[in-house]
Amino acid sequence: MSYARQMLDSYQSTLGVDAALLAAAIDAISDCVQACIADTDADLSEQDVTEMVRCIRLCLDCADICAATGGVISRTAGYDAQVARPLLLACVAICKSCGDECERHAHMYEHCRVCAEACRRCEQACRELADAMK
Amino acid sequence: MSYARQMLDSYQSTLGVDAALLAAAIDAISDCVQACIADTDADLSEQDVTEMVRCIRLCLDCADICAATGGVISRTAGYDAQVARPLLLACVAICKSCGDECERHAHMYEHCRVCAEACRRCEQACRELADAMK
Amino acid sequence: MSYARQMLDSYQSTLGVDAALLAAAIDAISDCVQACIADTDADLSEQDVTEMVRCIRLCLDCADICAATGGVISRTAGYDAQVARPLLLACVAICKSCGDECERHAHMYEHCRVCAEACRRCEQACRELADAMK
Amino acid sequence: MSYARQMLDSYQSTLGVDAALLAAAIDAISDCVQACIADTDADLSEQDVTEMVRCIRLCLDCADICAATGGVISRTAGYDAQVARPLLLACVAICKSCGDECERHAHMYEHCRVCAEACRRCEQACRELADAMK
Repeated sequence: MSYARQMLDSYQSTLGVDAALLAAAIDAISDCVQACIADTDADLSEQDVTEMVRCIRLCLDCADICAATGGVISRTAGYDAQVARPLLLACVAICKSCGDECERHAHMYEHCRVCAEACRRCEQACRELADAMK
Repeated sequence: MSYARQMLDSYQSTLGVDAALLAAAIDAISDCVQACIADTDADLSEQDVTEMVRCIRLCLDCADICAATGGVISRTAGYDAQVARPLLLACVAICKSCGDECERHAHMYEHCRVCAEACRRCEQACRELADAMK
Repeated sequence: MSYARQMLDSYQSTLGVDAALLAAAIDAISDCVQACIADTDADLSEQDVTEMVRCIRLCLDCADICAATGGVISRTAGYDAQVARPLLLACVAICKSCGDECERHAHMYEHCRVCAEACRRCEQACRELADAMK
Repeated sequence: MSYARQMLDSYQSTLGVDAALLAAAIDAISDCVQACIADTDADLSEQDVTEMVRCIRLCLDCADICAATGGVISRTAGYDAQVARPLLLACVAICKSCGDECERHAHMYEHCRVCAEACRRCEQACRELADAMK
């Protein structure tokens, strides 16, 4: 069981959404931050860096937005849909773009294939959470 | 002239929005991050911490969302309105909530008055940038 | 296998340290960030918030330092011991302090027990990595 | 007067260091985060990205470490020299490396000249603060 899930189970909070769904989103976000930071570095190590510029920029945006989203949805007691929903939508949008771009390089670079997978899972988990918050 | 403005003036980018508007948003966001981090600590130093819990949570969300938004809008070359707009809207919404809550304490605590001011300026600057991106 | 490990295995880098050790540190750091953010929120939800102020401050420092350390050690290609070692030492020190404080509350609050465990694992993993970098 | 200084002046804290010195460090750190994020994007926009790879990596490390250091030293109430000093030393070291690398490109790229200046000021301010904490 992830730390996110253990933490959610450990205290009373006015959660309003299913704990399993929320923990899955926090975990997927955390993985996506890891993958995007590492993929940026891997892209910078390739010979044709120029080809990877768009991928690097998207990974940087994705890591920043995911980290902020993870923080906000982890503070379960103060959910405000007016904040959390557009943030989750931004997260879904950047994970989609970043995942698409990484997938374009997936046949050449294993690191982009792995990062694309992390982005897809994160996109899906954030979309489900955003839907549940409606 | 702020570093943000100097940096924007120093290289060719497919900006798409007015550099003065963008630099103002980056500066206001940077100030708001500073103010919210410091206000969290100041709130924790007050005797009636229990009264400040909501203010602390909002400041934590506000600092996280502002930091991510500042990063994304600073990477001017890759603007994607589908990402930047909901992110700016989340930023406007949290700055509004955090500014309102800080203002409630402004008569008692100078640190909340200062933080409310930083949130208001950031809300305004991000709203103007979001409008300009339409 | 964690994303950190998959990413490390996916590209050639001038790593200089054992990949298993590095991946373990990145994973432990990632977990510790999650746990500290959640523990801050859980602490703020307790009735005796005043008692938890020191715990909250340490969790905030711990989350910030761990996040930065995770980023730096994930960019494996450019290791500079003059940067990475003091950073890892700061990470070890804050994980020790935060873990100690969380443990003081562990008998009362399950969330502090879980967070203490995440801090201990992170402290250990960062110490081992710092030692390997000597 | 910067928000950092206004915040420091607004509440009683067991500061232990001169407020002007601390505010100067927080401001310089905040500027350096801005400059390094923008310089990363500017570097990625240059034709010879390959030449800029080391500069990009150093800017990414510098932004991460500065952001964490800014957070920790802004939470003035809980200073722990065992944490703050190695963190400030890591910050000084990365600002030195990043400033040196940016300076190498300063004659060609105005954005690197500006970023080098921000790094130098941050290095100096953090060194002075670290010395004052001894």
